[in-house]
Amino acid sequence: MTGKIRVGIVGGTGYTGVELLRLLAAHPQVELAAITSRGEAGMEVATMFPSLRGKVGLKFVTPDEAQLERCNLVFFATPNGVAMKQVPALIEAGVRVVDLAADFRLHDEAQWEKWYGMAHAARDYLAEAVYGLPEVRREKIRNARIVANPGCYPTAVQLGLRPLLEAGLVDTDNLIADAKSGVSGAGRKAEVHTLFSEASDNFKAYGVPGHRHLPEIRQELSEAAGRAVGLTFVPHLTPMIRGIHATLYARLTGDADLQALYEKRYAGERFVDVLPAGSHPDTRSVRASNVCRIALHRPQGGNTVVVLSVIDNLVKGAAGQAVQNMNIMFGLDECAGLDQIPVLP
Amino acid sequence: MTGKIRVGIVGGTGYTGVELLRLLAAHPQVELAAITSRGEAGMEVATMFPSLRGKVGLKFVTPDEAQLERCNLVFFATPNGVAMKQVPALIEAGVRVVDLAADFRLHDEAQWEKWYGMAHAARDYLAEAVYGLPEVRREKIRNARIVANPGCYPTAVQLGLRPLLEAGLVDTDNLIADAKSGVSGAGRKAEVHTLFSEASDNFKAYGVPGHRHLPEIRQELSEAAGRAVGLTFVPHLTPMIRGIHATLYARLTGDADLQALYEKRYAGERFVDVLPAGSHPDTRSVRASNVCRIALHRPQGGNTVVVLSVIDNLVKGAAGQAVQNMNIMFGLDECAGLDQIPVLP
Amino acid sequence: MTGKIRVGIVGGTGYTGVELLRLLAAHPQVELAAITSRGEAGMEVATMFPSLRGKVGLKFVTPDEAQLERCNLVFFATPNGVAMKQVPALIEAGVRVVDLAADFRLHDEAQWEKWYGMAHAARDYLAEAVYGLPEVRREKIRNARIVANPGCYPTAVQLGLRPLLEAGLVDTDNLIADAKSGVSGAGRKAEVHTLFSEASDNFKAYGVPGHRHLPEIRQELSEAAGRAVGLTFVPHLTPMIRGIHATLYARLTGDADLQALYEKRYAGERFVDVLPAGSHPDTRSVRASNVCRIALHRPQGGNTVVVLSVIDNLVKGAAGQAVQNMNIMFGLDECAGLDQIPVLP
Amino acid sequence: MTGKIRVGIVGGTGYTGVELLRLLAAHPQVELAAITSRGEAGMEVATMFPSLRGKVGLKFVTPDEAQLERCNLVFFATPNGVAMKQVPALIEAGVRVVDLAADFRLHDEAQWEKWYGMAHAARDYLAEAVYGLPEVRREKIRNARIVANPGCYPTAVQLGLRPLLEAGLVDTDNLIADAKSGVSGAGRKAEVHTLFSEASDNFKAYGVPGHRHLPEIRQELSEAAGRAVGLTFVPHLTPMIRGIHATLYARLTGDADLQALYEKRYAGERFVDVLPAGSHPDTRSVRASNVCRIALHRPQGGNTVVVLSVIDNLVKGAAGQAVQNMNIMFGLDECAGLDQIPVLP
Repeated sequence: MTGKIRVGIVGGTGYTGVELLRLLAAHPQVELAAITSRGEAGMEVATMFPSLRGKVGLKFVTPDEAQLERCNLVFFATPNGVAMKQVPALIEAGVRVVDLAADFRLHDEAQWEKWYGMAHAARDYLAEAVYGLPEVRREKIRNARIVANPGCYPTAVQLGLRPLLEAGLVDTDNLIADAKSGVSGAGRKAEVHTLFSEASDNFKAYGVPGHRHLPEIRQELSEAAGRAVGLTFVPHLTPMIRGIHATLYARLTGDADLQALYEKRYAGERFVDVLPAGSHPDTRSVRASNVCRIALHRPQGGNTVVVLSVIDNLVKGAAGQAVQNMNIMFGLDECAGLDQIPVLP
Repeated sequence: MTGKIRVGIVGGTGYTGVELLRLLAAHPQVELAAITSRGEAGMEVATMFPSLRGKVGLKFVTPDEAQLERCNLVFFATPNGVAMKQVPALIEAGVRVVDLAADFRLHDEAQWEKWYGMAHAARDYLAEAVYGLPEVRREKIRNARIVANPGCYPTAVQLGLRPLLEAGLVDTDNLIADAKSGVSGAGRKAEVHTLFSEASDNFKAYGVPGHRHLPEIRQELSEAAGRAVGLTFVPHLTPMIRGIHATLYARLTGDADLQALYEKRYAGERFVDVLPAGSHPDTRSVRASNVCRIALHRPQGGNTVVVLSVIDNLVKGAAGQAVQNMNIMFGLDECAGLDQIPVLP
Repeated sequence: MTGKIRVGIVGGTGYTGVELLRLLAAHPQVELAAITSRGEAGMEVATMFPSLRGKVGLKFVTPDEAQLERCNLVFFATPNGVAMKQVPALIEAGVRVVDLAADFRLHDEAQWEKWYGMAHAARDYLAEAVYGLPEVRREKIRNARIVANPGCYPTAVQLGLRPLLEAGLVDTDNLIADAKSGVSGAGRKAEVHTLFSEASDNFKAYGVPGHRHLPEIRQELSEAAGRAVGLTFVPHLTPMIRGIHATLYARLTGDADLQALYEKRYAGERFVDVLPAGSHPDTRSVRASNVCRIALHRPQGGNTVVVLSVIDNLVKGAAGQAVQNMNIMFGLDECAGLDQIPVLP
Repeated sequence: MTGKIRVGIVGGTGYTGVELLRLLAAHPQVELAAITSRGEAGMEVATMFPSLRGKVGLKFVTPDEAQLERCNLVFFATPNGVAMKQVPALIEAGVRVVDLAADFRLHDEAQWEKWYGMAHAARDYLAEAVYGLPEVRREKIRNARIVANPGCYPTAVQLGLRPLLEAGLVDTDNLIADAKSGVSGAGRKAEVHTLFSEASDNFKAYGVPGHRHLPEIRQELSEAAGRAVGLTFVPHLTPMIRGIHATLYARLTGDADLQALYEKRYAGERFVDVLPAGSHPDTRSVRASNVCRIALHRPQGGNTVVVLSVIDNLVKGAAGQAVQNMNIMFGLDECAGLDQIPVLP
């Protein structure tokens, strides 16, 4: 690729949208061509997000004005169900796509329709879409026309559990993922349950009977294990803005040096950091950065392994991973534009 | 008991101490006789805690000035290792004791010394001390001279898991307690890791290799199960002041109507509230009150049961449960002074 | 009054509504007769607010079902503009009213219509409505048919500034009220700007050109001063759930012992606590209680007096003050049901 | 300057230290040579601050090991009173210094000794030290040997008020600065009052009788006004990690287009952003960046001007401004290493 990548963003008024803007505005090889919002067309992006004053000069435009077919890459930062309607035309026009929503994450369209409650509008494209977890599927991403950017919980859970499953070391029938998310994971929608006065100084589980990220995690972990896994996934809302902490439990069926296993599995991965044995990663250690930090424990030397995995849900769990995928798709340094040092405190 | 109970508090400058004061100052049958603090002797309690202005007129006094032997009951809200040195003399003087620290929680003195790193100074009293979880051991509490008030995590975990264990319905070798606590659980000590700028907007696990509440929970759950249980206990720090949320996982070995089981087990219990099936309790629904709320899930109808259990760590997890124990010990209405409605929002 | 006061609440799904329920459910002389919500009619109150389980057995009902005319007192915890339409009929039916919204706070209907952007529907009742700040107008409240419960900011600002104005000690042309509110002051409405992810870890001023509480404060301070005051009022949103901290600035024109002045002014007031000289009240020292705490400073001995005034916006700034007004109206102990000790930490 | 600037940091374990590391590790023209800590010598910096893993490879060293005299520039991120003891020797060795503490901020040594409670150890260097607010004193900074980096409150207050004072438009006898700071401003010291459980969900003023930043602000504003100003400065602690919001009040003595005045004063300043008329800046709009955003109001068209000024206390209020000063001192692009886009949400 010579010259900059012309990038469009569909749906730029949510948290993944503004995070994409934060990252792309500083990306040395990207030209931000257009950002669409039906509701806010005509408004300066920096009026809605003053943090971008002087950094992003664009206005929101309508999808028609955006001329997305002239982009090299379009990111969809839209609610589920939007990308699947627009992607086919873009693909056929030669535009590559990274969808930050769920439209292309499940291979099985029946499963998708069950969990997302609508008919899929681009079934013919499900098979070719690549599930974009770079640490697993880097080669396929390179040439993909459609990358399905993983969900935030699925990223933290998969990076934490995959080495155990790939090595065949654990009972795959009884995996447990107890995950805690900051409130930004719920998006920038006006809803009562995510108001400050509801979510602050409070902690709760939600979606225990079944959360939409469950089939996605199950699909990918089953692929890693080579058989259908049994997984209990319990998400929780914790009173912080950003961050996911996944606490993962599995029962060992064999023995191994787990620390060495993980360090080897992620050697060379620039966005996965296996901490020294005995560590407890905190979410702020990755705040505003694209890193996943992982620590391993085997309490009291028993046969239960506990994996702690933290990411920033808006970066490695969304916009950062999307940029990482873009970098791979266009042959750039995988870290281009993603070298932010976490903000601590 | 005619007349009011003369109550002393040893160690009133921490969070369990000020919470005891909040509850006891409004208790209709209590006379607050003395509150000790070596470091703050001579200071008005309400100068340290302005929330108590007009409600508590006492000054902190030295242990000598306190004349605790003239009390009917003394609460120890002290660091571990303090009560065990002072309790024997009080007991022999006819004073009853509720220890909010850990000194009398473990029956096995070797275990205690291993986990708490010091020799036990009152071994002869370990056998008679009653582990004061009222919903389990109400009758013994009634006549106890020493009540070991349960820890905060242990309260939430036990109330959540006991019905399953008592009914023999789950695999007791592989219990998991993933627990999240507000920061007040760490106490009112000047330490870096609980500073606002460290603990706010952040989430982390800690003590995964082994937390002091583990042997206490294991002891009590084993008693409930009738055999030694295998338990993985992972505590986490979550950025809120008060509250514990325990997410408990167990594998069913038999079948049962779990909702009915729990409702029956806790029928008549005024401080345990079994929520309707499908509920997700939030910690704020018990904020500043002595209630434990529990909900049951069996995700996707599988054989893993997920129990959600919430308490206020300073009330049902500490000072409130201590007052509940006092009420039982002195033949009062178990709810006396404990009818606070949770503060929401 | 013999027997209990039959109380109705119109609009019980917001924060002032649930706070009224928390206070009234524990009030020894109140019978909660009905609580209305058009949107939630038929739902158990305790389903919406699990903190009230076992404490409030009512369901929300429609206004028609509520038979409010059979109540002794009706609280309106509704948006501005609702009470004015329903109050006249209730008054004529002999029901007394406390309006927690703004409909009856301004004497001047033109001012009201300007600031609230609608025609006033009960002009004939504006003159008789009593502005219900008990520390100022206790006698009039006693016999009032309509009590206009003061706003949250106005309560904190007036209690802080009135003694200076009543004593004629300050330049009344240049008063400054820099006020900071917790987010619950914005109500339980689904709006983007009060989402956790927007309001947490953030601080901002708002409404600087003109906030609706300005004319209310100006009206009352002018009454205290005996002349129209000049007031600059700047409200801010601070990332906490409850609490208002008003920092008030005035220039002294004469000399006086300010500490003695305030102590004398509020002697006998059970809900106003003048702190010792040199104090800095924090909002948590009044959390969940009906107290206003005030401290006075004269930095560097200059002629600027700084008054610090804190309340819980939902209690002394709304529901607690409404109950206090009810107590006065019905000849009860002014503290009945209002003896909660602040929740700290 | 050819080649990279060799930089040393004295005192790298506090919040300004870790923030310097975050900024300098990404600065293209800086070589981090040494970072000292007596207490932590020998520990990897990234062990204490895992956010720096893979970004900072240094260990803390003792002052002796550091060989600071071989640096081009040394930053002091130490408590007050440390730099003044070490700076003279460094200066004489040809090393330039930026002190992030207060040792060189006041010209008047008697004032300094009064407010800081100790004798000054480097009186002979007070006169030459340059108060490093680049927007005011850029030329002098360029050649300074010692730059006194302004305090966090003083930066926000001065940038907000200076244009009014320089233009002679306001009554300088009655300036009011009502400032609110995030808790990181108190530093990374183990103290009770800044614990999460004390500072969260709470708001308070502090230091009203006199805060150490008062003489610094007064000195600089007096310089701007050409006469001694009268200033009331009230700092507050607000429950967020980073950010200062200064709400500034002044009485106009003349008339002017304030918006135009500020836009002109700060034209060309890359770190001061004058917002459109009517704006309300929030602190998160500058989070983790070196920008100060300012908005102007004249409520109800009166003669009181209200200036709202926000910064990140750790960046423009400390480490970022220090790097900005370094850039000026060494003839670099003033923005080098300071182009971080604010992190929102």
